[in-house]
Amino acid sequence: MPTGNPLKYCTKIRVSWGHCDAAEIIYYPNYFEWFDQCFHGLLGVADLDQRKLRETFTIVGTGAINATGQFVSAVTYGDILETCSYIESWSERSFTVYHRFEAEGRLVVEGREVRLFLARTGESESDITAIPIPEAFKARMSGGKSPD
Amino acid sequence: MPTGNPLKYCTKIRVSWGHCDAAEIIYYPNYFEWFDQCFHGLLGVADLDQRKLRETFTIVGTGAINATGQFVSAVTYGDILETCSYIESWSERSFTVYHRFEAEGRLVVEGREVRLFLARTGESESDITAIPIPEAFKARMSGGKSPD
Amino acid sequence: MPTGNPLKYCTKIRVSWGHCDAAEIIYYPNYFEWFDQCFHGLLGVADLDQRKLRETFTIVGTGAINATGQFVSAVTYGDILETCSYIESWSERSFTVYHRFEAEGRLVVEGREVRLFLARTGESESDITAIPIPEAFKARMSGGKSPD
Amino acid sequence: MPTGNPLKYCTKIRVSWGHCDAAEIIYYPNYFEWFDQCFHGLLGVADLDQRKLRETFTIVGTGAINATGQFVSAVTYGDILETCSYIESWSERSFTVYHRFEAEGRLVVEGREVRLFLARTGESESDITAIPIPEAFKARMSGGKSPD
Repeated sequence: MPTGNPLKYCTKIRVSWGHCDAAEIIYYPNYFEWFDQCFHGLLGVADLDQRKLRETFTIVGTGAINATGQFVSAVTYGDILETCSYIESWSERSFTVYHRFEAEGRLVVEGREVRLFLARTGESESDITAIPIPEAFKARMSGGKSPD
Repeated sequence: MPTGNPLKYCTKIRVSWGHCDAAEIIYYPNYFEWFDQCFHGLLGVADLDQRKLRETFTIVGTGAINATGQFVSAVTYGDILETCSYIESWSERSFTVYHRFEAEGRLVVEGREVRLFLARTGESESDITAIPIPEAFKARMSGGKSPD
Repeated sequence: MPTGNPLKYCTKIRVSWGHCDAAEIIYYPNYFEWFDQCFHGLLGVADLDQRKLRETFTIVGTGAINATGQFVSAVTYGDILETCSYIESWSERSFTVYHRFEAEGRLVVEGREVRLFLARTGESESDITAIPIPEAFKARMSGGKSPD
Repeated sequence: MPTGNPLKYCTKIRVSWGHCDAAEIIYYPNYFEWFDQCFHGLLGVADLDQRKLRETFTIVGTGAINATGQFVSAVTYGDILETCSYIESWSERSFTVYHRFEAEGRLVVEGREVRLFLARTGESESDITAIPIPEAFKARMSGGKSPD
């Protein structure tokens, strides 16, 4: 069981003209790009990235099997999103990344990504399977000491 | 209560190089862009678009309050996604769009968007509220006769 | 003729996993999104944005008529782009925004956008024309005093 | 010297809500994504893709060193772009892909991508260099017989 406080990644995103659609609010698929970027930012807090994960755990990546966004209030260009992300739960072969974006103190978006450790099982790009989440990764992202 | 069979929008999407990330599989935020595009394609089946909806119902748009994707199997560039989308349920102030993407007969992705009819309540871009879904819209998307 | 030094907008962009393609280098269309974001950032330096420009000059926006990118060296996820952007030249009905992105002191990309002040001439979204660039805008972006 | 008529790739793109910005016209970086997609579509006409190119010619990809777009007339959601792309010129270590997009018979966009055959010269993702364009590739894309 991971102990300690989960690592957090928090940043600011300035909403730009091109993030908005003709209703002048953020085009929602952008939120999922930002969720993904925040997850990779979170790995960075642990001094990890996809390259290191691939080499250390012989995986092709930490792909998402599920992503959800709840878009609570509208934001337009010029606004600043204040984001925080962390891993909120673990199961044997997946983990859930939680993202919370606020603007001027009000909740804008909550998101969750369920991610896997994907390893190749054959020649084709689609021959991939989920392996058990390594304890070393759990420990590291949970703010505890890594066993390795 | 809407009657009839819901309108459906089905199309094919050729997965291109730029849709894939360094793991050579689709970068998942693309699925949400496609969900959105398929929703607008679905409006087109009913001879509707955002312009007509804005004028007819005095709204700013049909924004998403929630979006979910379940990424079941991996797809790479060169693959063809076969998509079908329709409105699967209605509540007073929202409706749920269902998207199903297959490739060579296997399920790739299921997605859902919960959408609102958003009307402006003030000067600012963020002063918007959800109005009741017009019966005329329900009827039209459900394949029944429109009352207007 | 504008006097003074042109306003500059410089920022840092962390290249993320999702910006890269299967060759593990930045997927080049991303550069043009960043060019656009940097142009809007540059407007912000002058305390301007599209909303203010639309109201002040009765335009629909500052659309690009031409964009060019020269991709000099490759960059991958985890790298930091250091960007600087400014308006490098003016003609009667257009102006050219110059963007220079570096990483660790080496040139990565140079880009240019030729932009117009687009005003609506009819009902349709495509009924737009380029008006002369207002002197007030030139003065402001050139670091001189605005006449208004 | 390549002989024959260059292979062409022509397709239709339906402009969707999400391709447009708050001015209700296409957000221009989308054109570069489409240029890239059309180039890969063009490879497909020759029964090629990045995987085959990598294996056949030991390259990491056919990266762009330069991209240009000339945005001649504005297009909005619901419009259909009719595109055609082909390789218009060759030099020793690069080739130029030409893209022409029309809508209802009027020119919308012209674009050009200068592309290289990039081979890895070291361990890092950025250790890549341009090799001479293989004659077999030129012949194939020029509609002549491939020597291999």
